[in-house]
Amino acid sequence: MNVERLVDQMLTGDRRALARLITLVENGHPATNFILSRIQGRCGQAYVVGFTGPPGAGKSTLVDRFTGSLRARGYSVGIVAVDPSSPFSGGAVLGDRIRMQAHYLDESVFIRSMSTRGSHGGLARTTRQIVELLDAFGKSFVLIETVGVGQTELDVMRIADTTVVVLVPEAGDTIQTMKAGLLEIADIFVVNKADREGAARIKAELEAMLQLRPGESWSVPVVLTRAVSGEGVETLLEKVLEHRAWREKAGVQARQNAAVRQEEFLRALEEEIARRLASAVERGAFADVFDRLRQGTVDPYRAALEVVERGDAIVDALRA
Amino acid sequence: MNVERLVDQMLTGDRRALARLITLVENGHPATNFILSRIQGRCGQAYVVGFTGPPGAGKSTLVDRFTGSLRARGYSVGIVAVDPSSPFSGGAVLGDRIRMQAHYLDESVFIRSMSTRGSHGGLARTTRQIVELLDAFGKSFVLIETVGVGQTELDVMRIADTTVVVLVPEAGDTIQTMKAGLLEIADIFVVNKADREGAARIKAELEAMLQLRPGESWSVPVVLTRAVSGEGVETLLEKVLEHRAWREKAGVQARQNAAVRQEEFLRALEEEIARRLASAVERGAFADVFDRLRQGTVDPYRAALEVVERGDAIVDALRA
Repeated sequence: MNVERLVDQMLTGDRRALARLITLVENGHPATNFILSRIQGRCGQAYVVGFTGPPGAGKSTLVDRFTGSLRARGYSVGIVAVDPSSPFSGGAVLGDRIRMQAHYLDESVFIRSMSTRGSHGGLARTTRQIVELLDAFGKSFVLIETVGVGQTELDVMRIADTTVVVLVPEAGDTIQTMKAGLLEIADIFVVNKADREGAARIKAELEAMLQLRPGESWSVPVVLTRAVSGEGVETLLEKVLEHRAWREKAGVQARQNAAVRQEEFLRALEEEIARRLASAVERGAFADVFDRLRQGTVDPYRAALEVVERGDAIVDALRA
Repeated sequence: MNVERLVDQMLTGDRRALARLITLVENGHPATNFILSRIQGRCGQAYVVGFTGPPGAGKSTLVDRFTGSLRARGYSVGIVAVDPSSPFSGGAVLGDRIRMQAHYLDESVFIRSMSTRGSHGGLARTTRQIVELLDAFGKSFVLIETVGVGQTELDVMRIADTTVVVLVPEAGDTIQTMKAGLLEIADIFVVNKADREGAARIKAELEAMLQLRPGESWSVPVVLTRAVSGEGVETLLEKVLEHRAWREKAGVQARQNAAVRQEEFLRALEEEIARRLASAVERGAFADVFDRLRQGTVDPYRAALEVVERGDAIVDALRA
């Protein structure tokens, strides 16, 4: 496989090449850093919106409708659905994706599901890299949807330019929101299924809690929606665009800033080293160490320390 | 802090030293591989029993009662409760742990909860390392309990010598069990809350499914329990001891075998390298690269490839 040609094909709009590159990056293919480096010149145009919130809040339907609104305005859309959860709840995600079939037929919408199983270097990092691929591919908006609200999902949301936290009017949700750290990460709150009892109350509670947040020039709005009927979705889009304008004015550039690039460099370096060590082992490197491990004359941790301290064996192994 | 002294104190039975060492390993302290190497001579005595199954199956209560049975026979017990799930379901775990207060007062029972948040190098690896610490501390049995049944939990269960899959009589559970890959990993099935309707039916279904498993000399039993009242718990313990005897006879030694040691060596090597790179960066290494990243004259992935290909910068950085 010629990875360079695949990247060129992707950059000229080949969806299948994009899909294959995403798979390569997900699996930690040896050319991962080469691929990501190749596309950097084309990145930085897409606006990334994250949707998170407890399961059952209707995020998938909302993302579906939001995509429709973006398409109606002529924007192209990439969607990454992130599911770190168990097979016991996995069925719902598949069902959700089937509901999005309308957009599957739309050439300007690219949808990709990710699970822990398919992610090599941590879900948040792999998601960031897939977002970069969709960005380089030319999507105007990339939407990231998570299934739950665990630590992994919070990490994933750090990639988003605008984070939308989706809740429902059920009692207790606001308390849970605070416990789960969602109050801190929300740029916009959505109370979905807003025809249910308690929608106005939870909106008021959220607004009261938001006033306790330390002074920021962006004031977090609470939007009422009914994703099923599409009510409120246009308002949500307006708020996202307002937040984007505010960010531009305020000079926020989280996804591409120097700190992120430095962190990416260190992670990419670690991964490159790990990949090359693994392939060196396949070629027979560290045979002496493996012998001693097999005989039980050294333990794995002592062996690791010895190899690192020797140094030269590592340099040999890193020569791809 | 003198890590060597801490290890010595732990090995003479100091519970606080054990707790501190677990924290160090969880956080990926620079001395992690040193600690793990130091204790290897004392490992290999503990028998590890894993408890997994869908949320709400009553695993915590079962582990509690199982601990009681082990204590009644004079065994010391270590418990690792693994929760990779979200803060939205986190409350239950805390509640479960509070229920185990009886055992907290028992000096021969050591309980530790772990979440994704607190685990540095992946939950399964960190769990394995904590099990090694409890083993070296002298526990006869180490019980691992997971909250759900996702991929992470399946990985965690690979550490166990005996894996107990806990289900309840509710309809649909058997199908879900197959989907979640639990049929393959179970050494023993428990149908808990066996006073509920459908217990006999699910037992029969499981036994029928188990006959489809390719020929093995261990025949997986299905044990009915009522953890709340303690019914069936002694039978479960008998089955675990039978499985242990079978393993010894069959010569199975999963946790300590050569393949595991080699895998541990590679992971320990990667982590040692990553830790030393990070601390080298704190001391000012790669300053030239960081300058170029800041100026935007190189992207993170290209920079990583360059550094690896140069080699010498890495060797310098690895000198602790």
